[in-house]
Amino acid sequence: MKRYLKTDEWNIIEEGFHAEHQRMSESIFSVGNGRFGQRGNFEEPYSSDSYRGTFVAGVPFLDKTRVAWWKNGYPTYYTRIPRAADWSRIHLRLIDEELDLAQWDVNSFTRRLDMREGIAYRDMEVTSPRGNSLRVHVEHLANMAHPDLCLVKYSVTSLNYTGRLSLMPLVEANVTDCSELTKEKVWNILDAGATPDCAYMRTQTRHEDAHVGYALSFRLQKNGKEVAHNPIRIEKEKAVGFSAGADVKPGDTVVLQAYIIIVSSLYYERTTLVDTAIGKARKARSLGWERLVADHRQAWKEIWDETDVVIEGDPEAQQGIRYTIFQLYQTYRGDDPRLNIGPKGFTGEKYGGNTYWNTELCCVPFFLLSTSKKIVENLLMYRYNQLDKAIDNARALGIGGGAALFPQVTSSGEECHNEWEITFEEIHRNNIIVNAIIQHAQLTGSIDYIVAHGLEVMLAISRYWAQRVSFSQPKQQYVILGVTGPDEYANNVDNNWYTNYSCVQCLQTTLQCIETVADLRPDDYARICHATGFDARRETPLWRDIIDRMYLPYDEERGIFIQNDGFLDKTLQSVEAIPAGERPINQHWSWDRILRSCYIKQADVLLGLYLYRHHFDTETVRRNFQFYEPMTVHESSLSPHIHAILAARIGELDKAYSLFMRATRLDLDDYNNETDQGLHVTSMPGSWLVIARGFAGAQMVDDCLCLSPLIPPHWERYTFCVNYRQRTVRISVSRESTTLTLLQGEPIGVKVYGQVQELVKGEEVTVVK
Amino acid sequence: MKRYLKTDEWNIIEEGFHAEHQRMSESIFSVGNGRFGQRGNFEEPYSSDSYRGTFVAGVPFLDKTRVAWWKNGYPTYYTRIPRAADWSRIHLRLIDEELDLAQWDVNSFTRRLDMREGIAYRDMEVTSPRGNSLRVHVEHLANMAHPDLCLVKYSVTSLNYTGRLSLMPLVEANVTDCSELTKEKVWNILDAGATPDCAYMRTQTRHEDAHVGYALSFRLQKNGKEVAHNPIRIEKEKAVGFSAGADVKPGDTVVLQAYIIIVSSLYYERTTLVDTAIGKARKARSLGWERLVADHRQAWKEIWDETDVVIEGDPEAQQGIRYTIFQLYQTYRGDDPRLNIGPKGFTGEKYGGNTYWNTELCCVPFFLLSTSKKIVENLLMYRYNQLDKAIDNARALGIGGGAALFPQVTSSGEECHNEWEITFEEIHRNNIIVNAIIQHAQLTGSIDYIVAHGLEVMLAISRYWAQRVSFSQPKQQYVILGVTGPDEYANNVDNNWYTNYSCVQCLQTTLQCIETVADLRPDDYARICHATGFDARRETPLWRDIIDRMYLPYDEERGIFIQNDGFLDKTLQSVEAIPAGERPINQHWSWDRILRSCYIKQADVLLGLYLYRHHFDTETVRRNFQFYEPMTVHESSLSPHIHAILAARIGELDKAYSLFMRATRLDLDDYNNETDQGLHVTSMPGSWLVIARGFAGAQMVDDCLCLSPLIPPHWERYTFCVNYRQRTVRISVSRESTTLTLLQGEPIGVKVYGQVQELVKGEEVTVVK
Repeated sequence: MKRYLKTDEWNIIEEGFHAEHQRMSESIFSVGNGRFGQRGNFEEPYSSDSYRGTFVAGVPFLDKTRVAWWKNGYPTYYTRIPRAADWSRIHLRLIDEELDLAQWDVNSFTRRLDMREGIAYRDMEVTSPRGNSLRVHVEHLANMAHPDLCLVKYSVTSLNYTGRLSLMPLVEANVTDCSELTKEKVWNILDAGATPDCAYMRTQTRHEDAHVGYALSFRLQKNGKEVAHNPIRIEKEKAVGFSAGADVKPGDTVVLQAYIIIVSSLYYERTTLVDTAIGKARKARSLGWERLVADHRQAWKEIWDETDVVIEGDPEAQQGIRYTIFQLYQTYRGDDPRLNIGPKGFTGEKYGGNTYWNTELCCVPFFLLSTSKKIVENLLMYRYNQLDKAIDNARALGIGGGAALFPQVTSSGEECHNEWEITFEEIHRNNIIVNAIIQHAQLTGSIDYIVAHGLEVMLAISRYWAQRVSFSQPKQQYVILGVTGPDEYANNVDNNWYTNYSCVQCLQTTLQCIETVADLRPDDYARICHATGFDARRETPLWRDIIDRMYLPYDEERGIFIQNDGFLDKTLQSVEAIPAGERPINQHWSWDRILRSCYIKQADVLLGLYLYRHHFDTETVRRNFQFYEPMTVHESSLSPHIHAILAARIGELDKAYSLFMRATRLDLDDYNNETDQGLHVTSMPGSWLVIARGFAGAQMVDDCLCLSPLIPPHWERYTFCVNYRQRTVRISVSRESTTLTLLQGEPIGVKVYGQVQELVKGEEVTVVK
Repeated sequence: MKRYLKTDEWNIIEEGFHAEHQRMSESIFSVGNGRFGQRGNFEEPYSSDSYRGTFVAGVPFLDKTRVAWWKNGYPTYYTRIPRAADWSRIHLRLIDEELDLAQWDVNSFTRRLDMREGIAYRDMEVTSPRGNSLRVHVEHLANMAHPDLCLVKYSVTSLNYTGRLSLMPLVEANVTDCSELTKEKVWNILDAGATPDCAYMRTQTRHEDAHVGYALSFRLQKNGKEVAHNPIRIEKEKAVGFSAGADVKPGDTVVLQAYIIIVSSLYYERTTLVDTAIGKARKARSLGWERLVADHRQAWKEIWDETDVVIEGDPEAQQGIRYTIFQLYQTYRGDDPRLNIGPKGFTGEKYGGNTYWNTELCCVPFFLLSTSKKIVENLLMYRYNQLDKAIDNARALGIGGGAALFPQVTSSGEECHNEWEITFEEIHRNNIIVNAIIQHAQLTGSIDYIVAHGLEVMLAISRYWAQRVSFSQPKQQYVILGVTGPDEYANNVDNNWYTNYSCVQCLQTTLQCIETVADLRPDDYARICHATGFDARRETPLWRDIIDRMYLPYDEERGIFIQNDGFLDKTLQSVEAIPAGERPINQHWSWDRILRSCYIKQADVLLGLYLYRHHFDTETVRRNFQFYEPMTVHESSLSPHIHAILAARIGELDKAYSLFMRATRLDLDDYNNETDQGLHVTSMPGSWLVIARGFAGAQMVDDCLCLSPLIPPHWERYTFCVNYRQRTVRISVSRESTTLTLLQGEPIGVKVYGQVQELVKGEEVTVVK
């Protein structure tokens, strides 16, 4: 853990320069707007340890799969989002010196990420080796209202320097690939140059032929007045921009406003990409800084108005929950079914910016409950649009007949991961996609999506399971052999309880949906059967038999579900038994040692109890929680929030709170010693889920929203809104009572502690615990 | 399977050019002498599909480990034997044409590998695009008597051509790395040039700084008379040699004899390597072809006199058994404890030329029984010399206290493989090393090696097991979790019966040896205890407890050992159920499908029954064989001979014979569709073991060699010699009787069908069945 950032309810603040944590700070201070994003790198050159990264949504690069020992079935390519051109570089030069925080004295330094406004600030006083002192103020934002626009203001005040001061805004495509695996060139530079007012560049990813265009325009002011500059154009092969300056004396301030456009062939015609970018950059410059920033602030205000969670009495928790919401919205706008959410968003290259089951597990329930926007439809459509490739994927693994196995890791729909124990065996991922479809129907109260698209996905996945299970003669039950469950510290195991259980749920809900659709929308049902070749009489008897006779490992003595066959043969001990200094174990132990230990990476059995919670009584949850939680190391960011929610639901509030803090401050406090590589973006909504589902106990049961709010003992109050079935309900929980307000929509009943409360728009209803 | 080679008892013959099988032929016609070796490539350029390869023993290259997803514990480097300079190139040029079998008409073509002499011959008549016809005769050998010397005779007769005919012998280091993973340069060329009579080159592997030097001298004759040639020297950066020629008319024959020296820094001072090579090349040239070839023939004669197996009545079997012996001796001389045997010898790059457990499993028992040379001592010393690194290796995986885990794959003693399920989990490999030590003591009748070195290895391995097992509360027994057994189609399983059983054997034999050494050689025992910090009173109680309470999965109903936990839950079916065209399954099925199938790559439970055969009655062997054999796909070359031996021992002679043929003709008939990549050298002695241990039933029981010979029904007779305890016994088995002759050594008793026969040197003893 690292705790060098200041606690503040709306800001992330680094006071004093922590060069030793520069990579972590660069992750933390990342900015983005869903179309592009970048790590919180310094604009000016920095000659010490740093990890620069700029990323453009939906522009993947196909890397050849490189493994020493090929296994049949491995994908040909590993897709990944490459680092793009570094579009926001600004060099600051004096007569014969150039600012570099690794070389200059840093007299004062503050970095601040304003989450309400979505602006990163940097303020510092620095002294050059020759004794020239400057005050520098930087503002940097990825415009939420103008999705192609990045804005940087770089303001320099001379404290004791007299002479020429030059600022050089640049777009640099001299990207060296950080992957150790390959030195392969990512970008072809098709066009690069500068007009008198606008620098531009067009780049192309190899293999994929995706294009990204950039344009850079700027204004320069001295002491508040436009400098009638005649900038030097910089037109190198891999760097374009300007050098502009002014003569200064102590007290003078020079301000550069950079208007940077980033556009890709995902949204614009590739052949005219440069013209498009230049036109947009000129327009931005003419609209001017104030107007563009005002639009940006307004966009963020709208997000916060809908999504903010207010926690009174715990500034650390308050900061944490806002940070997670902020970073998720910086990564994903929810308006394009071609995009998904990379585990590290635009903050790092790990996981390649690809789509994982994280999306359905963690982001879908957040968006479903927290916003009235149709974001989840886009996320569901993303999978639906890839169904054909999921069918191809299953066929390549020997399972045909229209069965689908959605990839573990993908960008275009093709599997791109290459660890057999994950790629081929972590097949439970199929079920969370079905679960997401069902949750969507529950929360919207509509089967429209199921009818239009969802049922096809469910059929294909159910067909997969029908072939993937096998029948054990000794057990006289169906078994699922050779899988990796959610706990990735247990590979190639048999009968992972979660996988088996969620398989049964998948088959069961598919059968129910078949009945419902056949009944209510017979024409659609006929269309679906025709399109998929589905024959219920032929196919479903086996499904029903699997549902009836699935083996679900259970320990009678302890009254717990067994994570997988053989689990109880392990030496069972708590994480306390791990020697100091050996956590996270994945950074210290060899893989075999991890595998044969009892330690669980992330919620596994408990994930099943969370997802299908109304299937289990509280005592069952408690027994399993008390058995598995002590052995869970939470080395997946997907873990703490699940445990926190269950802990709250069994009344272990202290545990729930500490796990909530782990979830919500995972990156801010660097629990897993890897924030330097980027943020855990797709897990971030988990902390909102702890508030809604854990502390407030929100769940849909029989078409009714049920709450049973709790509050951590030292909190005064927490307030958030849920959106479902065309209603918005504000929920405010204090130690004494819970107040509900229907902000939008028709009257509706909500159960609080089992009692139905009728809500009418605008009227507060308070329930005393 | 491919059957285009002719059957012959002493020769491998390809009649007619099979360009479509060129890579396979290049493997099959490989030549070597234990110090260097090469694939059966054409000397002249060949512009169609081909896989060239020349290899020098003990000169590894360190490749950086390249995996997409790093697991803690992976080794930094993958060691591999790189392709060396191509030392035996000979270009044949006419005025403006150059021989290339892919471009010229091949009127007749015969390749022949004479196994008795160790010479590869090629004879062909070819016609150039311009209609020039030539007869070419080539002889190629890696000299067994002069271990640095390669000899090539290239003889060309003009059939209708008149004009200049040039021959260009070359050493070419223009080696492009065939690994797809890396384009890294392997060789630095430190020196390259030519004196008037000798071309030379010195090369260096990067990282390792191992040097290889080459020198090439030659003679040229026309119609039997030396040509007073003044050759053109070729001194390119990466190719050195000569161009020499003669004017010919139809009927004239030009013969080039190339004398090629290959020396490495393993044996010679690196700084003077070029001088050494040149001196040796000149000396060879002066000794002359006839003398050098005669020495070579004599060396092979001595090998065959000791090791030949004569099978009467089955030329295919005869050819196969000789081929396996021949290729093993081409790869390994047994005279240097720094060398071991790469799975593909000098015939391919797969497996990197590294040491696998293949050596102890298959080569050690062959050398132990088949020769009086002290080859096995060198193989055991190889491991002993790497003990410290095996201790480091165990420590890196979290198991300290002087425990050793010998690497799965190694050259220098450091693990170099990077598949977690193999590298970290295929730990049974430790036990075969102990088994080899014990077998050596049994066959030599001496504990000298155990006292000098073996016990230290055994202690370190036993210490490993004492920590690697764990105690299962539900079973109240010791278990070994998370392993890959010999069946590599079952990864990360619990309680692999073979691993658990051989662990117990390891601990038990170590305890016995401790007692014996402490008793018979107390001073040595004290020295060993001091050197290893071994304290029997502290350490051995746990070992005894493990021996007493090891869990050994057993199925009461079937009366079989269970390969690993959960095996019986699989869908059990015979290999017959695999659809046609899907074998070998590792070339057709994705890894997960293989893992969850019942199919077994190679002998696993059956390996235990083979290695510890006298622990089990024949009925137990039969039940297990009949259960496991039908599910075994034999996709490891280590498999068929084990099954063949057991099949013979339970009286299933037909099965034994077909498995023997699979073992002995694995490469000649390309059973596994991969001979093109190289030969299965380390498995080759398995076919000799089928003769000795399977058909003849040879085993040591209570210090006595026991035989119970069988003979496949269509064989007339088979004859071979066994060497043990300073005796050589010739065993000749016909359908009617078995004749034993003590060729060397003091009188000794041998049990045949349970009856002791006293053998005296020179006297034949015949036992009628």
